[in-house]
Amino acid sequence: MKRYQAAIIGYGNIGRFLVDAIETAPDFQLAGVVRRPESVQKSAAQLTGIPVVTSLTELDTVDVAFLALPSRLVPKAAAEILAMGINTVDSYDIHSDLVNYRQQLEPIAKTHGKTAVIAAGWDPGTDSLIRCLFQFMTPQGITYTNFGPGMSMGHSTAVKAIPGVLDALSLTIPVGTGLHRRMVYVKLAPEADPEVVEQAIKQDPYFVHDETVVTFVPEVQGLIDMGHGVLLERKGASGRTHNQLLKFEMRINNPALTAQVMVAAARAGLKQQPGCYTMIEIPVIDYLYGEREELIASLV
Amino acid sequence: MKRYQAAIIGYGNIGRFLVDAIETAPDFQLAGVVRRPESVQKSAAQLTGIPVVTSLTELDTVDVAFLALPSRLVPKAAAEILAMGINTVDSYDIHSDLVNYRQQLEPIAKTHGKTAVIAAGWDPGTDSLIRCLFQFMTPQGITYTNFGPGMSMGHSTAVKAIPGVLDALSLTIPVGTGLHRRMVYVKLAPEADPEVVEQAIKQDPYFVHDETVVTFVPEVQGLIDMGHGVLLERKGASGRTHNQLLKFEMRINNPALTAQVMVAAARAGLKQQPGCYTMIEIPVIDYLYGEREELIASLV
Repeated sequence: MKRYQAAIIGYGNIGRFLVDAIETAPDFQLAGVVRRPESVQKSAAQLTGIPVVTSLTELDTVDVAFLALPSRLVPKAAAEILAMGINTVDSYDIHSDLVNYRQQLEPIAKTHGKTAVIAAGWDPGTDSLIRCLFQFMTPQGITYTNFGPGMSMGHSTAVKAIPGVLDALSLTIPVGTGLHRRMVYVKLAPEADPEVVEQAIKQDPYFVHDETVVTFVPEVQGLIDMGHGVLLERKGASGRTHNQLLKFEMRINNPALTAQVMVAAARAGLKQQPGCYTMIEIPVIDYLYGEREELIASLV
Repeated sequence: MKRYQAAIIGYGNIGRFLVDAIETAPDFQLAGVVRRPESVQKSAAQLTGIPVVTSLTELDTVDVAFLALPSRLVPKAAAEILAMGINTVDSYDIHSDLVNYRQQLEPIAKTHGKTAVIAAGWDPGTDSLIRCLFQFMTPQGITYTNFGPGMSMGHSTAVKAIPGVLDALSLTIPVGTGLHRRMVYVKLAPEADPEVVEQAIKQDPYFVHDETVVTFVPEVQGLIDMGHGVLLERKGASGRTHNQLLKFEMRINNPALTAQVMVAAARAGLKQQPGCYTMIEIPVIDYLYGEREELIASLV
């Protein structure tokens, strides 16, 4: 059977796990990885037998591009790739900008007859699907999303972008009812002022609303574990019946799950009409590989 | 704003809770309840101010009919109502016949330009959505569906049909890895032989595969509680990364949740192209009341 040709844009944490998720998917084939020119050389050892290029245009046919870039770089890249007539999938995680980002991509996707599936990770992503379920099962009530304990890639990347930071790790610690502490471990550049760096972190939009503890450490790499988790809880009412208790919990390798969800989203995107979609706008069956009636028989 | 006109067909456990779920929904209005002629009289006390009729044709405009009938009566009723040009929603729960039932309704729905949303309860229903999520998040692994503790209507009805049983209650007790114990409480007829009844229960197709404990009690009604629950568990692999741990758990009033899910399914059905749908074939956002971009902003 035909396999969809996939390109990975970027080769950080998610990019690495996308190689696994694409190679183990029965309906995708990895066409190549797009990296910055200065990183292409390193790829020889890391990516045996996989084409590594500096631009998507160097790859033959690409059906879908997986954007494994920092979220801040995603909107521009997605717009450019859609305009090349290639579907995109990303795990853009800036919740507050999602509606705006979706509005930007929608006309580009439609003009070029392609789809973009955005915010396709686990939060936003699969957690969003769960929040919707909880909401329609019990329209009245409160849903709490409790993250962690685990490393936040988005938050860690945000810290690394601050001048004076050589390396950083941000852990998300749940403190209940949807509140979190951010434990930030930072390796400082020799010339950096710790107080300036600490203030810059605490004023960053990623951190400004949460309790944030910054610790300076000589090395960050030895602290890293990719495990993460979430607990989604809701107590609500169905009709006039209160005390309906709903709970979703997971403990996962973070980039491995994100990459796997992106592959499912790419599959679903290939089945949709041109446009830009968040995961809640696509039928859940479309994320799955397999024949429709067999899926219904085995999963419904 | 316009409210969709809803009719409830049947007035058992689920029918009663559908009144609540429809009356509390901002986008639906209860047009009436359809009952058997012999039950209409009882309705005066139970259903103040709500039209109670013996046929859907007695109600003016109906946009959607909620089938709150025993599952074995649902397929025929759904086909008839769709042919009248009215959308249907049901919580048909015979898993093994779902694909067949869907195939039967699909052409009728299309011919009459209407939608049927079938198997829209919690299992099948919202649990089916969760099983799909688990499957695409970790394509390799095993999902266990653990029901209870709670009352099983299907099993209780099966026991009541056995000669010598005056009343019965069957509780489903999870014993892990998708296996269940059946705790059966029976009120015997005076002339009945307890050993004969116990053997008949244990040999019934509903019970023959499970550990079954039969207890004889003077009265069953005092034991009934509508609470139920489920624990869906999966340990699987995302890409090449194993030990991804996923869990969904709920403790709910059973008919109240079923009724609420049916209202969400009715809403979603009104947004779909003509045809017959299981819940996994509809975008999750369509189950929700509200403006699209506001839902994306608040739930994604």
